Amino acid sequence: MTAPLHEAHPSGRRLPDTQQGMRRRNLARVMHTVSAEGPLSRAAVASRIGLTRAAVSTLVDELIRSGLLEELGPERPGRVGRPGSALAVSGRGPAGIGAEIGVGHLAVCAVDLRGDIRVRAVRHGANRGRSPESVTGELTELVRQVVADAEREGLWPAGLAVAVPGLVARDARTVVRAPNLDWHGIDLGALLPGELPLTVDNEANFGALAELWLGDGTPQDFLHVSAEIGIGGAVVVDGRLLRGTRGFAGELGHVPVRPEGPECVCGGRGCLEQYAGEDAVLRAAGLEPVEDRVGLLAGRAAADDEAVRRALRGAGTALGIALTGAVNLIDPETVVLGGALARLAPWLLPSLEGELRRRTTRPACAVTVSRLGPEGPLLGAAHSVVRGVLDDPAAVAGRS
Amino acid sequence: MTAPLHEAHPSGRRLPDTQQGMRRRNLARVMHTVSAEGPLSRAAVASRIGLTRAAVSTLVDELIRSGLLEELGPERPGRVGRPGSALAVSGRGPAGIGAEIGVGHLAVCAVDLRGDIRVRAVRHGANRGRSPESVTGELTELVRQVVADAEREGLWPAGLAVAVPGLVARDARTVVRAPNLDWHGIDLGALLPGELPLTVDNEANFGALAELWLGDGTPQDFLHVSAEIGIGGAVVVDGRLLRGTRGFAGELGHVPVRPEGPECVCGGRGCLEQYAGEDAVLRAAGLEPVEDRVGLLAGRAAADDEAVRRALRGAGTALGIALTGAVNLIDPETVVLGGALARLAPWLLPSLEGELRRRTTRPACAVTVSRLGPEGPLLGAAHSVVRGVLDDPAAVAGRS
Repeated sequence: MTAPLHEAHPSGRRLPDTQQGMRRRNLARVMHTVSAEGPLSRAAVASRIGLTRAAVSTLVDELIRSGLLEELGPERPGRVGRPGSALAVSGRGPAGIGAEIGVGHLAVCAVDLRGDIRVRAVRHGANRGRSPESVTGELTELVRQVVADAEREGLWPAGLAVAVPGLVARDARTVVRAPNLDWHGIDLGALLPGELPLTVDNEANFGALAELWLGDGTPQDFLHVSAEIGIGGAVVVDGRLLRGTRGFAGELGHVPVRPEGPECVCGGRGCLEQYAGEDAVLRAAGLEPVEDRVGLLAGRAAADDEAVRRALRGAGTALGIALTGAVNLIDPETVVLGGALARLAPWLLPSLEGELRRRTTRPACAVTVSRLGPEGPLLGAAHSVVRGVLDDPAAVAGRS
Repeated sequence: MTAPLHEAHPSGRRLPDTQQGMRRRNLARVMHTVSAEGPLSRAAVASRIGLTRAAVSTLVDELIRSGLLEELGPERPGRVGRPGSALAVSGRGPAGIGAEIGVGHLAVCAVDLRGDIRVRAVRHGANRGRSPESVTGELTELVRQVVADAEREGLWPAGLAVAVPGLVARDARTVVRAPNLDWHGIDLGALLPGELPLTVDNEANFGALAELWLGDGTPQDFLHVSAEIGIGGAVVVDGRLLRGTRGFAGELGHVPVRPEGPECVCGGRGCLEQYAGEDAVLRAAGLEPVEDRVGLLAGRAAADDEAVRRALRGAGTALGIALTGAVNLIDPETVVLGGALARLAPWLLPSLEGELRRRTTRPACAVTVSRLGPEGPLLGAAHSVVRGVLDDPAAVAGRS
């Protein structure tokens, strides 16, 4: 997938419109081109981005010096002209460190500029009710361990991105509300290691970005819906996350489905989460909450348990009603079901798609199922750092 | 209001990232600066946009030659240095021609680069059920009359933008569905005069753009809701319209409010339009449809007609439920009520805001009332042409 050449930097900052800015953008174009299509010779890069070979050589030399590109040695003979050296994105150099604070686990990984996961660490254990200090202390340990392992492989951390199950302010540091951790107004920037550039975001946002960057044919306009304990949503428009004024966009879980329905933790009534959240589905099926809620539901549904299947049909109907409103407002190309919803999709989709078909302008918006599943948020976090390097290589050059 | 310097052209096209593209962008920066803050001397423009005075002079000379800027004569004496000539946006030169096909009227206007309405023409009469050929024939006559009047004032038409009460495809020509005109799949590009660059868009979209460009302190992120026969909605994010994959984004009227509610023309049930559309409110108040529905409702409500007030409260509740979903998904800074809703706001707002307060994350999204009212779509259409000229002056230079 080739990135749009004029894509804004993920931080929302645009490179300045000067000669210097143009050089930085051209460095990014070289990186994106080699990343998407490499290995490539200098001449091939030049022809793809429409610059002279001399201009590209200068840019490439700078990227090699900074450890972002590497030369694979002379191209195979038999070609016309002087043999060039094939360029590839470096498997050493900068790495993105992704982390996830889940309700029941902590995870950290290091992804290199090629997109390969090079180090990974997970710790299971309930985080709900633990103090933010205790959780971030354990996460910091895990991050340092992953960074040390990555450094042994010749990588250096370009930044840390942390996925959390809650609303994050636009400062990309503050967890405004994470009801399933019982965290409110926590500044993770003050609690996590200061040595790396830090970005904190909602796990549904990172899941959607992972879908955009790593998904199989995911379009540039889609609505991503996932579920763990709550329902997470994220809106991608023209290949960019819709963040909203406060950073809260995509809160599909609190769209009213039946306005006089059951009370919700948010203070509203009849929100989607009251019909399609994991606990609501368990309740509707007459089951007690367990650790692996999704495993239980999927297992029983696969074993033809009619109460579970009926509960999942009901959840699909509620999802279809909420998604009808969302599709009318946003007109996405597809709706992508991720996380736990991906695993439960066989039993949710018939009623969900039925509602969408009945209620929206034909042809109804397509619904697809993510192949990343619960890995999405962690991968999206790590890749957001990698994308930041590809989008502005000049910002990290010389930092190694 | 200063436009963001790197704003994409309204057509979605970005200027190319070359020397030539940089020159074009700098021409746009000069135009936007003089437009927002003029009259200004060349030196003042140079200091505001961070270019040398020599570079700005070259750009300004080109804009004067093309009739986009004019010199007001020497600045008042008493300043240090050689007296400069103050620059202003030209009141001659290019004009934006805006047009509106309403259910009950046709309107056309010409707006100059300063934003002043210079010519205006309206014809009343029902368009519902008339053939597209007949309506566009009459509109073409009206456009030619307005253009002739504008030309007598030294203006020339830079383009024609037409607002229609229906869904428009992303080709900005084809009316996919305008139920209140009974039009389906009509290519207005083939029916309207070919001599002017043409843009067709949904009236709610143009209404939202008018609010963005001409409103009083309207933020860059808002949801615009208007009503005539149907309910129109438009979403503005970072100062740009959210269009959606098919061009259908913002369809608030068909968000389900009560999923088992009355059948809707869209095929769904319990859509917002079934509770807050003009005909629905008349029905709820026990009134027969008349020509001036909004006038009737506003008059009776002001005269303390309890049935009408109750019907409007119900409409406000339904709007509040639908807007709760929209605010959760999009997280706008404000919701702006425009068109007929602006006039009915005193009786809609209490129940509407009550629902929003109860159902959304505090602090609840602010709701404001548009001061443009029913003029919005026509003004937005004309100004969209004017903004196109300001955003890329090089594209019209020499066309006069």
